[in-house]
Amino acid sequence: MAGPSIIENQTTMAMRWHGDCLELLDQRLLPGEECWVKAVRASEVAGCIADMVVRGAPAIGIAAAYGVALAARYAGGGDWQAEIKQGIRELAASRPTAVNLFWALERMEQTLHACHSLAEAAERLETEAIRIHREDIEANYTMAGHALEAMCPEQPIGVLTHCNTGALATGGYGTALGVIRRLHREQLLERVYADETRPWLQGSRLTAWELARDHIPVTLNADGAAASIMAAGKVKWVVVGADRITANGDVANKIGTYSLAVLARHHKVGFMVVAPSSTVDMALARGADIPIEERDATEVREVGGRQLAPADVQVFNPVFDVTPASLIDVIVTEKGVVHNPNITGMEALFG
Amino acid sequence: MAGPSIIENQTTMAMRWHGDCLELLDQRLLPGEECWVKAVRASEVAGCIADMVVRGAPAIGIAAAYGVALAARYAGGGDWQAEIKQGIRELAASRPTAVNLFWALERMEQTLHACHSLAEAAERLETEAIRIHREDIEANYTMAGHALEAMCPEQPIGVLTHCNTGALATGGYGTALGVIRRLHREQLLERVYADETRPWLQGSRLTAWELARDHIPVTLNADGAAASIMAAGKVKWVVVGADRITANGDVANKIGTYSLAVLARHHKVGFMVVAPSSTVDMALARGADIPIEERDATEVREVGGRQLAPADVQVFNPVFDVTPASLIDVIVTEKGVVHNPNITGMEALFG
Repeated sequence: MAGPSIIENQTTMAMRWHGDCLELLDQRLLPGEECWVKAVRASEVAGCIADMVVRGAPAIGIAAAYGVALAARYAGGGDWQAEIKQGIRELAASRPTAVNLFWALERMEQTLHACHSLAEAAERLETEAIRIHREDIEANYTMAGHALEAMCPEQPIGVLTHCNTGALATGGYGTALGVIRRLHREQLLERVYADETRPWLQGSRLTAWELARDHIPVTLNADGAAASIMAAGKVKWVVVGADRITANGDVANKIGTYSLAVLARHHKVGFMVVAPSSTVDMALARGADIPIEERDATEVREVGGRQLAPADVQVFNPVFDVTPASLIDVIVTEKGVVHNPNITGMEALFG
Repeated sequence: MAGPSIIENQTTMAMRWHGDCLELLDQRLLPGEECWVKAVRASEVAGCIADMVVRGAPAIGIAAAYGVALAARYAGGGDWQAEIKQGIRELAASRPTAVNLFWALERMEQTLHACHSLAEAAERLETEAIRIHREDIEANYTMAGHALEAMCPEQPIGVLTHCNTGALATGGYGTALGVIRRLHREQLLERVYADETRPWLQGSRLTAWELARDHIPVTLNADGAAASIMAAGKVKWVVVGADRITANGDVANKIGTYSLAVLARHHKVGFMVVAPSSTVDMALARGADIPIEERDATEVREVGGRQLAPADVQVFNPVFDVTPASLIDVIVTEKGVVHNPNITGMEALFG
């Protein structure tokens, strides 16, 4: 049984499932090297998530699901349920902010609870992981359709995006980048401006690379240039993904997203968030409740292994920020869209 | 005759004048290496400006003035005036946006016109260059005083700055960073947040280094984190320099400045521009008239010599952006301050 592989208008993917192992494209080495990391244990998958071999909220969730499937496949004959649950715990501890991880693990644990033997668990957990993967891709196609309806561009438009939300961040096709693929296919895309997205440079290393491979017109810019791009009237929409969306419509996403939302509002540019419903966390009331991961200072002090700042300088390196619902024009999920999100609109769709 | 050297609360400087040569600290190699480049010809100084061995609007103007002094010192016995004027033309062509360069060269040319012999020119042009250098440092001290009056903090405050506006960008002490030095000396500075300032990373490489050497508390952040820092209430003021200020109070400064101005207004954080009056160009009506330099795409595609994006990806790399006067709370110069700048306020001080 193999994971989904054929995806329209896309030549890259973040992971390959082989039944007995999960291969992850090492995103830390892109675009210089295309190196696949093979994981056969849940702890190895957890390590790959923590170390950002694989990143992007939906991709993390899917990789974690395959990690549980591997825990079942390689469980010993003893207390196999405890062994699989230990794998789930390790995977849950890999990263704190994106909720898709916990959502996927919850689905896997529910599946586990219904199993009466290790053989049954191994089969059903693999099936469930592949289903999570397939559903993610389908959700991306559905969201792209919803997004185009919400934008209803009459002629080709420019859009600006942040971080990487494409094939590399999801099961395939992409969330915000899926919308951009769809605009391109419909000949409604003039150009994508891609923020380079410091400190991890997902825009330079992943988005520019992914879009260039698929012949989608992309211009790379320093994050600080986004305001000038908006002021010059080059973009009609900012389209981004999300790592967690709370009950009132606040959105945690890659650091720099909130800045773009303020700038978009100032320039009367639309601001759209595209994420599968697994990103929505109705259990959290507002964005201030979301745990925001901070990563190592070396991510800011160094680039490409080269020291760029004094070695001991203090660094503030939050991975995510929170965009309040009031700055968002529309949240797009596969279940539908929420315009001018607030608690009422969110409950109507996700309550 | 030596250039100014002793500057309060500062251990670094961008240039050293030796009478027969100008030494420039190679800012491209900081903070890893402290390497001084020696220039004995005007064309060598022009090359150092174009290649960003020296950068920062006031420092560029001062270096260019010393370049003219060198042109006079080493002029042949023939048409020495034509030779010096040729040097001035080469220096004027080195960079387009900062107006201090043209202002300093204009002063040097006026001095040249009053000279009747090469010996007289050599002496008077050197004296004038040193005067321009000394006046810049004095202006920085004066501006720091004006800025503190305009801020009137009652207790230590956090400030955020962008690019490098310190000793390395000026004759010494700094413009925006001079204000920060002064706040620190008065025990009114809680902490400086320094944007790393992609693509050239002046914040990481120069500001963090310069402040750390002078024991001023600094936290380095990716440019995209500035909005979160403001939202968290960590800063009361954004303080930046300028490369050109037009008659209506619009300000051209390092790319990313305009973004900070929009964010500051949104968060009710003060936005202050600190620059010597040589930065003011009353001949230009508005910011849209300022020529904005674009530099090579490799600045965005590469960091520290390492390829970070696809080699052929299109890049938008403007070096500066324009902040409209309407987003600026106060412009500080050595001649005084302009609150809520507009054409009336600007003409009252600079008309």
